[in-house]
Parts: sequence; C-alpha cells; structure tokens
Amino acid sequence: MNNNLIEELIKALKKFPGVGEKSAWRYFFTLLNEEEGELEHFGDLLIRLKKEVKKCPSCGYLELGGRCEFCSDPYRDKSKIMVVSYIQDAMAIEKTGVYHGLYHVLDGVISSSKGTYPEDLNIDGLKKRLNEEVKEVIIATSPTIDGEMTAVYLDKILKKDGLLITRLAHGLPMGASLDYTDELTLIKAMDNRRKVDEENA
Amino acid sequence: MNNNLIEELIKALKKFPGVGEKSAWRYFFTLLNEEEGELEHFGDLLIRLKKEVKKCPSCGYLELGGRCEFCSDPYRDKSKIMVVSYIQDAMAIEKTGVYHGLYHVLDGVISSSKGTYPEDLNIDGLKKRLNEEVKEVIIATSPTIDGEMTAVYLDKILKKDGLLITRLAHGLPMGASLDYTDELTLIKAMDNRRKVDEENA
Repeated sequence: MNNNLIEELIKALKKFPGVGEKSAWRYFFTLLNEEEGELEHFGDLLIRLKKEVKKCPSCGYLELGGRCEFCSDPYRDKSKIMVVSYIQDAMAIEKTGVYHGLYHVLDGVISSSKGTYPEDLNIDGLKKRLNEEVKEVIIATSPTIDGEMTAVYLDKILKKDGLLITRLAHGLPMGASLDYTDELTLIKAMDNRRKVDEENA
Repeated sequence: MNNNLIEELIKALKKFPGVGEKSAWRYFFTLLNEEEGELEHFGDLLIRLKKEVKKCPSCGYLELGGRCEFCSDPYRDKSKIMVVSYIQDAMAIEKTGVYHGLYHVLDGVISSSKGTYPEDLNIDGLKKRLNEEVKEVIIATSPTIDGEMTAVYLDKILKKDGLLITRLAHGLPMGASLDYTDELTLIKAMDNRRKVDEENA
C-alpha cells in the first residue's frame, strides 16, 4: 500500500507551530471528515496564498495588490510611524483602536543568537520613509533583549533634528499582581514611575 | 482592499480542533513564510486527499486503493476482530505491536446525547464479517458511558455459539498514582482484581 499522501500530509501539518505527531493526526482526521469541496477550497487558498498576498512595498504590512490598508488610507496620521518587528504586532496594536498613524514592519529583530543583523531587516526602507512629514517614530519592538537592542540601534541611526523617537512604555501590565511580576519589569516600573496626577494626563 | 483570501484561510485553519483566532493567525504566518512550492504541494495534498484516501470496504480502516493493510495482509490472524470506534484507536492499538488480528472500525459510538444510533454505525458490516473463521470479537470502545453502552449493545446482538466476545480490561493505567485515580476506575480495578500469580500469566 502506498501511504505517501498520508505521510506527506502529516509532515505538512507538523510544520504548524506547536503541532506534533499526535495533533497532526487529529488534524488529518478533521480534514478527512470535511466535504471534498471544502478541502478543494482550502487547497486552492494555499496555492493562491503566495501569489496573491504580498507585503506592502512601503511598510511591509500585508497587502493584496498595491499598497496596504494603512499606507493607502488618506485618513491615517502620516506624521507618525510605529516600527514593529512583525505584521502580527501591528495587528495587535491596531486592535486597540487608539493608534491612527502608519506602521513599519522590520520583519524581525536584531539578534546575535539567531544571526539576524541590521542588514537582514527592513531598515533601509524605514530610513527612506523619514521625510519632512514624519515627526515621530515610535519603536514598538518587544521588551526582550533582542527587541531592546534593536530599539537602541534604531534610535542611534535614525536620530535627526525635528524627529522625535519614542519607545513604548515598560512597566506593570494592567491587572498584574506585584508578587508575580518578574524583577526586571519591577525595576522598569520603578524607574519609569510617574506623578499620580500625570498618569491620566 | 480585498481581504477575502486571508479571511477565508483563517476560517479554514480554525476548523482544526482546538485552533482559535490566535492560533489560526500564527498558522497563517507560518504558511506565509513557506516557499511557494511547499504551499502548492500542501494545497495539492488537500485537494487529492478525499479522492485518494478511502475507507476499506471490509473494516473501515484507511486505504489508498483496494482493501486496507490489515485486511489484505495474509499474515494477520483472521480469527480475531477488534472493534474500535475510530481509525485512530486502531492506530493506537497497532503501535503496541502485540495485536496481530484484524480490526473493525465502527466510525463512532452509540450516543443518545449526540443522537448516534446503532444504524448510524458500521455494525451491519461487522455482522457480515462474522463467518466461521472468526473465533473472537474484542470490543475496544473507550471506557466512557457511550463506549460502554456500545459494548453492551454489540455483545447482545453479536452473541452466538462458538464466538467469544471480550472487552479490553478496565483498571489502573500503568504508572498511575492511586490518590489521583478517579473513583470509577478504582471500583473497576477492585472488581477486576486478579491473583498475583495470574497477573503475568
């Protein structure tokens, strides 16, 4: 019996993050119980994915033809660019509904352990976007060692008169209990403490 | 911007068991970072799946043309049929490497809560297989209320002279600690206790 199709499908399913042998088989049986038409549709979506979903030539966000929904939106505030590591990060910020500027996706972080250097990231594209209209660059890399290093690097190379370079605040996450908070976060929260009457200003 | 392809792909990914919005997006970005050729291959596997992977007309196990690997194997012990609810269950038994008989996949359990009745299961097919050659039917439905009910039902309708109908043993799983074992399992383990010198017989 030729089991190739099954084996290859299990192999493909195991590429999803966190999916091992057991989950792959559960997924396989889920697929096997689908209608044939549904599977053909799913297969077709995968085949079309790379052909139709591209990255915005300006900011690196997802787009399906031309520029992304932010860069092509005349109502977004073009004086602010938030620099994120990944498309998902921009999506998370966007869900808050309070940011109306543009984004720039680096597509990674500078990481000596992973061997990712500045030239591997979409930094040249960012520099090119910093025209007179841009007044603030908000660095929103994650508060990890690599994210911090990337932020420091960007701050250094982007610095110029008339451009404000900021970083998302570090501190206690809302709803956290102090005794479960790690030391580094507590230190950052103390360092960055604010006067109570400024807090909601 | 037309986001349909992305939305539909997220919807398709969310059909996998336990995959919600967040995991679906993680899977989406995994796919987006794959080579185009890999995605085409994956898509092609999905499209071919239902066309090429069928269920064995005799036992209901997976096959890719003709009868399954068990039914078509002249070395399997044809005097024993193990009745399982799902294909996965037969795979789990097969991994132990100690069972050499045939299987029969019911494709479910009798369940009043889910509205699954005997006529919805592959029971007629099982009855037809019980020729003179078959000496034992091992009922290996799960030790749940529905699985037990299915076992009792099968025992009742399959009973005939010269046919041994058995059920997988219930008791403590190996490596379990008594104080973490549920009461029903403890009761079954006490009811089914065996003389120590019979244990490894």
